[in-house]
Amino acid sequence: MVDYVVYGRGCFSQLDEIIAPRRKETRPMIFLIDHFFTGKPLVNRIPIRGTDKIIFADVTYEPKTSQVDKLAQQLKDEFGSISGIIGIGGGSTMDLAKAVSLMMTNPGSSADYQGWDLVKKPGVYKAGIPTLSGTGAEVSRTTVLTGPTRKLGMNSDFTPFDQIMLDPELTTHAPANQRFYTGMDCYIHCIESLQGTYLNEFSKSYGEKALALCQHIFLEKEIWDDECDDKLMMASYAGGMSIAYSQVGVAHAVSYGLSYLLGTKHGIGNCIVMNHLEEYYPEGVREFKQMVTRNRIDIPTGITAGLTDDQFDAMINVSLGMKPLWENALGKEWEKRMTRQKLRELYEKL
Amino acid sequence: MVDYVVYGRGCFSQLDEIIAPRRKETRPMIFLIDHFFTGKPLVNRIPIRGTDKIIFADVTYEPKTSQVDKLAQQLKDEFGSISGIIGIGGGSTMDLAKAVSLMMTNPGSSADYQGWDLVKKPGVYKAGIPTLSGTGAEVSRTTVLTGPTRKLGMNSDFTPFDQIMLDPELTTHAPANQRFYTGMDCYIHCIESLQGTYLNEFSKSYGEKALALCQHIFLEKEIWDDECDDKLMMASYAGGMSIAYSQVGVAHAVSYGLSYLLGTKHGIGNCIVMNHLEEYYPEGVREFKQMVTRNRIDIPTGITAGLTDDQFDAMINVSLGMKPLWENALGKEWEKRMTRQKLRELYEKL
Repeated sequence: MVDYVVYGRGCFSQLDEIIAPRRKETRPMIFLIDHFFTGKPLVNRIPIRGTDKIIFADVTYEPKTSQVDKLAQQLKDEFGSISGIIGIGGGSTMDLAKAVSLMMTNPGSSADYQGWDLVKKPGVYKAGIPTLSGTGAEVSRTTVLTGPTRKLGMNSDFTPFDQIMLDPELTTHAPANQRFYTGMDCYIHCIESLQGTYLNEFSKSYGEKALALCQHIFLEKEIWDDECDDKLMMASYAGGMSIAYSQVGVAHAVSYGLSYLLGTKHGIGNCIVMNHLEEYYPEGVREFKQMVTRNRIDIPTGITAGLTDDQFDAMINVSLGMKPLWENALGKEWEKRMTRQKLRELYEKL
Repeated sequence: MVDYVVYGRGCFSQLDEIIAPRRKETRPMIFLIDHFFTGKPLVNRIPIRGTDKIIFADVTYEPKTSQVDKLAQQLKDEFGSISGIIGIGGGSTMDLAKAVSLMMTNPGSSADYQGWDLVKKPGVYKAGIPTLSGTGAEVSRTTVLTGPTRKLGMNSDFTPFDQIMLDPELTTHAPANQRFYTGMDCYIHCIESLQGTYLNEFSKSYGEKALALCQHIFLEKEIWDDECDDKLMMASYAGGMSIAYSQVGVAHAVSYGLSYLLGTKHGIGNCIVMNHLEEYYPEGVREFKQMVTRNRIDIPTGITAGLTDDQFDAMINVSLGMKPLWENALGKEWEKRMTRQKLRELYEKL
């Protein structure tokens, strides 16, 4: 679990005070912030001291192991060691910050640690400050990274942040489409996990709460106001916590294939897939479509048009490799229900 | 926050494996278990190794600072230092284990640390394994202790457990009355915090979930089954988490007076008071009474009959000293609404 959690509108102002005891002699704090904030007022609120450094993270694409390795190497070259790293941004920035923290102390490449419990040493101090709500990356035990051979996280006891600051004010200026896609990551996660075959009361409680918050925000509220930002940040947190004893399902498994081949970002990829999953989640897809209409969002279509057989095969291979997701969604006999042919037909619809 | 959380029916069997990496050379693990379990099968499942010791904790009364100091001194005299302490029991045992862990490394008496952030050193490794659900003590940042001059916790960043194991199976054999009173501690907490003036979306989300779980268990279920134990354990956890940014109210403030003077235990004390709080929590009290009836529980009455004026005054003094609780319940002008006379009349009804 994350050791320290602060939640509250405006709590970003406490950052200087909160990280003060974590500063080590002359070693800098590194603020890794989503490049979306270049030139924006938030940058001026970062509590820079001494040799601290702000790095704008290019999260046009989701984090790659090569990007993590490069960032960690740059920091080692420039500073030797650092006091800690503070990630400020969406899920990609959260994951980058976690991974770079770990690679400041663990040898080799981050690709060596894609898997479960391969990380052997704690990283440097790391804090996460989300500016988008939905992925739950702020509380997860993983960092999703695209490596040379796979898209898989560094899952370990050392991966969660030491501190997170949940300040819903920071999400106010997110573009409405982006906010929706990221929010839907949470909603879709809930549908997949609550209908899955892996679940216990711990994850169910968190999943139900996250779902209820999403339903309130995206189906009941007439306008987007502070309450929506407050609640969506809690939905993201609860959705992230629910991962502990649950698993995602068809939307994520199919979306991973899109992401691997086409670089489709996680939130929007899940939406593109969810749009066509009536067979697996009839009630959830009906509600999802209501949310799309009500919030006047365009879900892209036709993104797989013109792909070659080899390209379809590549997506199918990545997707079918996500065995726990399929088993959670369709049970132990999932391979009988989701054949390569059937998955190909699904990809062709997207 | 608690660093590691395991939830699952039967997970107690993993205890040996989970604490193995925390064992330090020849120093023992101490298992502090509620004396209720003396001679019961659970004791035989405790993974004793080397010089490990089982101590049966007398929790007839709620923990006192003198009891904490004595236990810590005994352990120091016998072992010098220990690997850690594992609390197995209800809220009192949880609080005892947390406090003894802290007093193994912090000098002086636990009474010196009653307050906020007075504890300066981490304690020894500590794990909590609840066998009753409701108090939320397993996740709280405090340990409620009765000291020479006050009933107040050791609130600090070092107070939460390093590990908790939430195994609903352990609560199966709790006496029905005890289970109800402890469950109601959670329910009453939710009513008080959700209707209070201190609250944010973090605590609201957790409080609402805990409340919904209690309502399901105590109002909808026809019989008490495993699902009730599973859900009540999550309600306790969620209720405990909701404390972060909320506060309890009238029931707790009045109940603290009973506890101080008469030694009334926390759960039952809250029920005795809640029974008479229609003026403050009309909807909650109506529902509480439904729960009492439906679950065929007797709530004691007449417990303050025959007390002297001095005794009433003592309770009133303790109760009115809980300023944040009153302010949360009745607002900044609470002293105008809750006078000594009015509180006396309330105590006389109990």
